[in-house]
Amino acid sequence: MTDEKRPVAVLAAGVAPRTKPSNYPEPFASQMAGREKRQLGDVFGLGNFGVNLTRLAPGSVSALRHSHTRQDEFIYILEGTPTLITEAGETLLSPGMCAGFKAGEGGGHQLVNRSNAVVVYLEVGDRSAGDTAFYPDDDIEAWHDGDSWRFRHKNGEPY
Amino acid sequence: MTDEKRPVAVLAAGVAPRTKPSNYPEPFASQMAGREKRQLGDVFGLGNFGVNLTRLAPGSVSALRHSHTRQDEFIYILEGTPTLITEAGETLLSPGMCAGFKAGEGGGHQLVNRSNAVVVYLEVGDRSAGDTAFYPDDDIEAWHDGDSWRFRHKNGEPY
Repeated sequence: MTDEKRPVAVLAAGVAPRTKPSNYPEPFASQMAGREKRQLGDVFGLGNFGVNLTRLAPGSVSALRHSHTRQDEFIYILEGTPTLITEAGETLLSPGMCAGFKAGEGGGHQLVNRSNAVVVYLEVGDRSAGDTAFYPDDDIEAWHDGDSWRFRHKNGEPY
Repeated sequence: MTDEKRPVAVLAAGVAPRTKPSNYPEPFASQMAGREKRQLGDVFGLGNFGVNLTRLAPGSVSALRHSHTRQDEFIYILEGTPTLITEAGETLLSPGMCAGFKAGEGGGHQLVNRSNAVVVYLEVGDRSAGDTAFYPDDDIEAWHDGDSWRFRHKNGEPY
């Protein structure tokens, strides 16, 4: 049955932003200042994948550069000109461009807003069980325990 | 390892449209004339979900009205004003609006372009195993056999 409390459709920009700015432990959470996520899939109760409308203020980043073992990711640029950083180098993106990051492939990806204007993009990621994340540039690793993301140092010590 | 043949990023509108206009049997396949899908996720080898950039000419439709048992679906309107038809009635959408259709919920959904302008939207759907589709308005039912969608009449007879 349809949950009667759920809307049929919404204006994406009108969805309230996520209240927790980042799941990362410090010192990484503070590095996500300037990033704002609206969790669009959650509005409709989607469970198999998430879709965020994400806004990056000038100078901010999408995430630590990372790759997933199980989760595919996809981005579509709506506004602005972010720089996509991958193991292949840097690629300037613009509205109407998209990129995908297949689970288990690639050394890591990250968007950086080096422009003076806001960047807005859609990001999609599935919720495959047993996912882990690798961060090539930072002393952090992550795994999803079924409920939430957990983090530790690369030597196994907790944050 | 990254497949070296895959691009880092692409302009979505520059991806070649799918050559097969519809998977439906007749008489339904012909009803999808005016619909064009660019399979963006496939460009990057994504396997857990698909993302299409879909264009509806005036008078055309996204699909037969349907719902899925396993697959979540999500749409985000980029251009134009499609009408979303669900069991709750009709909702006029516009750019920046989105909707989601949770697996196993809802009596069926469909976009119809009743305007005189082109509609362009992103559609996301996951590839959960064992998915089936229900069509409330038409004598057709569908199941995914792991490789492709298969169709039959509601009395079980083949198309």
